[in-house]
Order: sequence, then C-alpha cells, then structure tokens
Amino acid sequence: MRRKSLEVKIGNVLMGANHPVVIQSMTNTDTADIESSLQQVVALADAGSELVRLTVNVEAAALAIPHIKEKLLAKGYTTPIIGDFHYNGHTLLTKVPACAEALDKYRINPGNVGFGETHDKNFKQMIEVALKYDKPVRIGVNWGSLDQSILNRLMDENGRSKKPKSAEEIMVDALCESALTSAKMAHEYGLSPNKIVISVKMSHVQDVIKAYTLLASQCDYALHVGLTEAGMGTKGAVASTAALANLLQNGIGDTIRVSLTPAPDGDRTEEVRVCQLILQALGQRQFQPSVTACPGCGRTTNTLFQEMTQEMEQFFKEKMPVWKKQGLKGVETLKIAVMGCIVNGPGESKQADIGISLPGSGENPKAPVFIDGQKVTTLEGPQMMMTFKKMVEDYVQQKFGN
Amino acid sequence: MRRKSLEVKIGNVLMGANHPVVIQSMTNTDTADIESSLQQVVALADAGSELVRLTVNVEAAALAIPHIKEKLLAKGYTTPIIGDFHYNGHTLLTKVPACAEALDKYRINPGNVGFGETHDKNFKQMIEVALKYDKPVRIGVNWGSLDQSILNRLMDENGRSKKPKSAEEIMVDALCESALTSAKMAHEYGLSPNKIVISVKMSHVQDVIKAYTLLASQCDYALHVGLTEAGMGTKGAVASTAALANLLQNGIGDTIRVSLTPAPDGDRTEEVRVCQLILQALGQRQFQPSVTACPGCGRTTNTLFQEMTQEMEQFFKEKMPVWKKQGLKGVETLKIAVMGCIVNGPGESKQADIGISLPGSGENPKAPVFIDGQKVTTLEGPQMMMTFKKMVEDYVQQKFGN
Repeated sequence: MRRKSLEVKIGNVLMGANHPVVIQSMTNTDTADIESSLQQVVALADAGSELVRLTVNVEAAALAIPHIKEKLLAKGYTTPIIGDFHYNGHTLLTKVPACAEALDKYRINPGNVGFGETHDKNFKQMIEVALKYDKPVRIGVNWGSLDQSILNRLMDENGRSKKPKSAEEIMVDALCESALTSAKMAHEYGLSPNKIVISVKMSHVQDVIKAYTLLASQCDYALHVGLTEAGMGTKGAVASTAALANLLQNGIGDTIRVSLTPAPDGDRTEEVRVCQLILQALGQRQFQPSVTACPGCGRTTNTLFQEMTQEMEQFFKEKMPVWKKQGLKGVETLKIAVMGCIVNGPGESKQADIGISLPGSGENPKAPVFIDGQKVTTLEGPQMMMTFKKMVEDYVQQKFGN
Repeated sequence: MRRKSLEVKIGNVLMGANHPVVIQSMTNTDTADIESSLQQVVALADAGSELVRLTVNVEAAALAIPHIKEKLLAKGYTTPIIGDFHYNGHTLLTKVPACAEALDKYRINPGNVGFGETHDKNFKQMIEVALKYDKPVRIGVNWGSLDQSILNRLMDENGRSKKPKSAEEIMVDALCESALTSAKMAHEYGLSPNKIVISVKMSHVQDVIKAYTLLASQCDYALHVGLTEAGMGTKGAVASTAALANLLQNGIGDTIRVSLTPAPDGDRTEEVRVCQLILQALGQRQFQPSVTACPGCGRTTNTLFQEMTQEMEQFFKEKMPVWKKQGLKGVETLKIAVMGCIVNGPGESKQADIGISLPGSGENPKAPVFIDGQKVTTLEGPQMMMTFKKMVEDYVQQKFGN
C-alpha cells in the first residue's frame, strides 16, 4: 500500500499522492559550462530521467541556469530542472533572479546554510525566493552534512536517558528532526506543505530504511528517497536496490534517485537505468519489454540461449525508440522468455507473451515457440534467431499497433 | 527478526536456525566433463560459494560426480556439492550408488518426477536413497515446471469459490502446496524434517515475495530463496536484489542463489558476487571492505575521486586473499570513504574507518584524511593515491593484525 503523501508539482511533473514514483538524476558536468550541461540533461532525460538536478555552486553556475533552461525548451525538453544549493544558495538565488526563476525546484540542505541565527536568516531568505517565484523546495538532509547542533543536543539528551539509544538510532532521529524542523520553519515562513519534498539520505542500507520509515510515520510530505554515496557499478546498484526495494515495497517514496559513482569512462545515464530496473522489478512501473532468461546449467552446454538473451535485450533497446515513434502503446509491458532447456523452458515460455525453449544438451535440437501460452511453431537451424525476432516484431505490431 | 527455521546440515555446512545465510551457486559446465566441472566448482568456491550445485542429467554425469568430489577433496575443497535431478533422478541415484554417496544433497523437483502413481513411486525411490546415504534433500519447486495436476485442481476449486482469487494467487498457492505436500510425503517415508530444504521459485519479484512469505508462514523448514531466471547483467542483479532484499529483511531465507544469465563470454562467479553484495548491503554478512563513494556532481569536475574509488575497489580485491593468508581477522568489516567534495566529504569520511575528502571544483586543492573520525593529515599532489593506499594498509595491519 502506497503511503499517503501530499501532491507536489515540479514544473510540469506531478508527484506524491497516487502519482507513479518519479525518477530523477543529477548532472556531473560543470554547471557553468552551458553546452556540456545541456547535453547531459538531454542525455539523462532521453534515458528516462523525469527530473534533473544540477549543482549551483558559484555565480557562473547560477548565470548559466537560465541559458540551459532556455536551450532545453528550444529543443523541446520540458524536463524540470532542480538547483542543488549548499552554503551560498541564499546569495546566489537573490543575486541571480533569472536563475531563481528558471529553476523548477530548489534543493536546500539545512546542514549547509550556516549556523545559529545565520542559519535561520539564510534559510528564510531561500524560502522567500521560493515564495516569490512560486517554486517547490526539497529539504534535503544528508548524514554527511548533518546539522551538528541537532546531533549534539540529541546525543546529550540520550546520555541522560534511562534507556539510551544506539549512536545509529540517534543519527536517524537527528536526520528526521533536522528535516522536519526545517520543513516546519519553511511552512511558518509561508510555504505550503505541498511545495515541500523531504529527504534523509544515509549511506548504509539499514540506516536509510530506518530513517525513511521513521520519517514516513511522522509526516505526509512527499519523500525523495535514495541511498547516498552508493558506490560503483554492481555494488552501487545492489546496495541502492536493497534500500529502495524495501522502502518502495512498503509504499514509501514518491521520487527516487540512485547515486552511482560512474567509472572514470562511465555513462552517467546508468543511474537512470537502475531506477527504471528497480521500479520495473517491483512491478510499479514498466519501461522496457522484459526478457526472462534462465541462468543455464550443465544441461545447456551451448551458449545459444545466452547469445539470444543478449541479442533480444539489444533488439528491444534499439526498437523501443522506433516503436515509440510509430505510436505503439504499451509495448513496454511485453514479456518474453528465452530458456535454455526443457526443465523450465516450456513452463516459463507459456507464462510469457512470447517464449522460446532452446534445446538443452542431448535434447531434440528443436526449439518450440509459445505465443500467449500456446505452442505455435518449432524452430531449428541457423535462421532461428532471425525468425524469432521477426515473430516478436509481428507480435508487437499486432498487439500494440493501432 | 530471522524466521525460526530448522537447522539442516549439508556436508560440513550448517544452515537454517541462527546460522548465517548460506550462499550457493550452480555450475554451467557439462557435468560429465570432470575437469571443466571441477575447475568451475573450484572457481565458484573461491569466489565464496559455500554450496555448489551441478546438474546430474545423464548417466555419464552421475558417473562423473564421485570423481569430481574426490578431486575436490584432494585439492582441499570441502565445499558440499549438490546434485540437481529432473525426470530420471530416481534411476540415476539407484543405478550409480557412488554418485548418491558422493553428493551432499539431492535437489528433487516434484514437478519433474513423473505423473500420478509414477510420481509417487519415483519420489519415494529418491527419498529412500537419501535415507540410505543419510543425505538431506531440497524439494525445489519452480513455476516453470510446476505439477500441473495441483494447479488444475486449485484452479477448479477457485472457479467454484464465491470469492475467486487471481490466477497469480492460485499459482503461488499451487507452488506452496506442491512443496509442502512433497515435504510431508518425504517425512512420511522416514526423512527427518531437518533433512529437508524447500524452495518455490518464480521469475517475477512480487510473486516470489508472496510465495516465500506464504511458505514461511506455513512451515518451519529451512528455505532456499531465489528469483528464478532473473536474466542478464545489471537487470538480473537488480531484480534478484529487489526480491531477496525484501525477503531477507523480513527474516526469510536460509540459503540464497542468484540466477544470472551470464553474457556469452561472462564469468559464472558473478552470481556469487551478487549474493555477497546483497547480504553485505543488508548488513547480514561481511565479505569485502566497503567503499563508500559519492556519485559526483557539478562540484567534482575532475575524475580523481572516480579513479580513486575504482583503484580502492581493485586494491581490496587484490589484497583480501593476501590479508587472509596473513591471518588478519575481520578486515572485511573495514569501511572506507572516497568523497568528491566538501559538501558531504568530511561528514561521510568521519563515519568511515578511513575517509578521504577530495577537493571539489574551486576548493583548496588539498584532501583531508580522517581515521576513526579524527582528521589526521592532509594530502595533495600526484603521490596522493599511493600515500592513501599506504595509510589504509597500515591501518589494516594495525587494527586487524595480531
């Protein structure tokens, strides 16, 4: 059951309430470099990022924002862009009004807006800009930049408690308190609760699950969920999935980001792909036809089913933009199965829209094909791959065409 | 809270009850090819697979098993090996007693042991072999090879019900019934419940979560948990994690397998690595020092932190076998942080055993290093990477050495 959260509008994107979980990502180009930032926002949006965040760290970055937004619109991209502010957000948003106006949301880290009275003044200043331009904000708390005064106070109180909590629990409490106190402040300054998104990111999976579960029970703000600093490659993807799949399964999360460290020559859009894979695995959203494929074993002594799985994944990657252009609707819900032998082959194939069960070791060298649960033909020989692709294409055109 | 399950002993490996979740994998070599199967079992065991399964599909495979086991022992590998049987398991286990004796567990798929009376006779015959050699079994149900008579009966009953369930719910019910009926049968034939492991695998995440949650509530058998036919690469890893992380977080699962389809030139041990990453992400077991690394953004306009993250991952990969040989204990619990700028850099670094916060764009080109929460030095210049590695090595020797 989805947690009941407030609806928030970011540019033209609705999130929270019953809206599908929104995917977002962040650029790693120098924001002041208009062309390369523009290119990356486009790449992320093309990959499926529905919101894109850019750091706005210096005046040159703030000055670049309206140009990036304008060029995006000129290219037909309405993807909302979010400014990520630390330390000097109040100054930049005031000094460069065109930036404040061009951005669709401001991310404020309450741990990085100064201390004591300066904190309150700077924070208020940012909220006033949000009010002036009618923009939503994210109160984005991160344990790497937590307001230390809150943590110290809670640690002190805990020290005097009869049943003291663990340091981890206090950290979780402190993150939630920082987020909710700041949200309350923003509300007191006049910002409507449906203009506020909250996040409490940590880098350990159990901490993140605890923090968001606590936060979800304490408010109805829309939540931006993510594991911070997840790391690289498969490790980062697995850790992010372990955290997000648990929260999303419990209905917690209105927008997600996966924070992967790209390899030095890596592709920034990988973080968008992992978001899509998580939501699709959980059955919450569909983005790509799914290819169910067996892992192979001693019964599958040739690699044909592996090659076919790889080719079909590639086939869908290439075909999806073509099918979308053609106006086919719903093709992302297609399920195919590529199975390596008779053990689960026919059974799994019947559960898919189209399935093929390749011959395992010692089996009859023929591959039955099932469409909508019925065996329709048996393929063999070197043309098998091409024929199967043709059958999939025909099925797609027939089922999802007008 | 871990579900209370019965303890099962497989070879020299204890699982279930309060034992850590056991990692297993399966070979994809031709079992009859003794040398290549031996090599792959060794590779999987070296990667961290604590149980290894091989298909035993034909007599030549059954004949190879005792040789594989013997050669494994000669190399010092006590890793239990499991025989995967379909259709002809009763025949092979009876005809080749040395195979029945050499295996540490038999996997029986109740959907693939024949129909009606033949089913019961074949199943009984396999259980009798298990009793004779005092071996545990896994009753491994898979929706791709589900006993259709159970499904048909439940579908019929459902059709007459006033509140009919969905086809997915009936499928889940049928898998659990197939598993539990077979386990009961095995018990009636004399097999002790602590010689029985159960699995109910499906290829959709929500189905798997439902099936194991139902099964867990209906019995106290040790459970082998996995998403079947997860597919390839990141997609397979994310889908497997989405399913397993939800079940493991709820205490369900005593042994896990991740069923990845390897790329045609892929490494079979990747499925073991993903198991380790899942258990480590959830904080259930530790296998490798963890590298917390930020994703970078417009503040991190050089790729030094990405290179350093990659180098540190590689460093640990190479060092772990060396450190293990040296007898260092607990080094897999080490946590390091490699951060790209000042926003979360010092904070996250302080949470790690050793952390480095690299300079972001426009920052002072110096990198503070934190050990056990205290800033100990500031690095700069081209020697930074080597110096940091040296500090990590020194820390490891000091903290985990004798």
